[in-house]
Amino acid sequence: VVKVVVKRIIKEGNVEEVIKLYGQLVEATRKEEGCIKYELFQDEKKPEVLAMIEEWESKEHLEKHLNSEHIKTIGPMIAQHTQNSEFNIYNKLI
Amino acid sequence: VVKVVVKRIIKEGNVEEVIKLYGQLVEATRKEEGCIKYELFQDEKKPEVLAMIEEWESKEHLEKHLNSEHIKTIGPMIAQHTQNSEFNIYNKLI
Repeated sequence: VVKVVVKRIIKEGNVEEVIKLYGQLVEATRKEEGCIKYELFQDEKKPEVLAMIEEWESKEHLEKHLNSEHIKTIGPMIAQHTQNSEFNIYNKLI
Repeated sequence: VVKVVVKRIIKEGNVEEVIKLYGQLVEATRKEEGCIKYELFQDEKKPEVLAMIEEWESKEHLEKHLNSEHIKTIGPMIAQHTQNSEFNIYNKLI
């Protein structure tokens, strides 16, 4: 199992638009093979901080997702509204 | 449900020690009331990047945890080995 956390700081005034775009992305991604979890979170105090927390059956499933049509079209639209982002792929230790 | 992500960059040479300390913390924390998940992850390419990903039944349970004896004793020991950290409390959007 592979865990992914994508943390973004969204540009001022663009949060609602990004959440809408994520709505489309979530719908398409959850249908993908190997997708265990794909959930969007918002910081309780800083609404401009969003985190997508993902769980994939394998690295191969994740890579297929990163090359999917919906990531290639919606990904750059989200990136355009993003001020700063961190992408980490994690393995579980404990 | 409240999601917490604590991301840490550990000082060089201290990762093994921090993982041991987290071992103790995980054991004690998973026994706490309201703790749904409390899992430690390591970046697949940067071993000095650790993430504790947590799930709590409520904000009150999380606050009780943050004031627990094990956090008060082990927390500062982990912090001492930490170069940089981010703590976010998230609410689920989608």
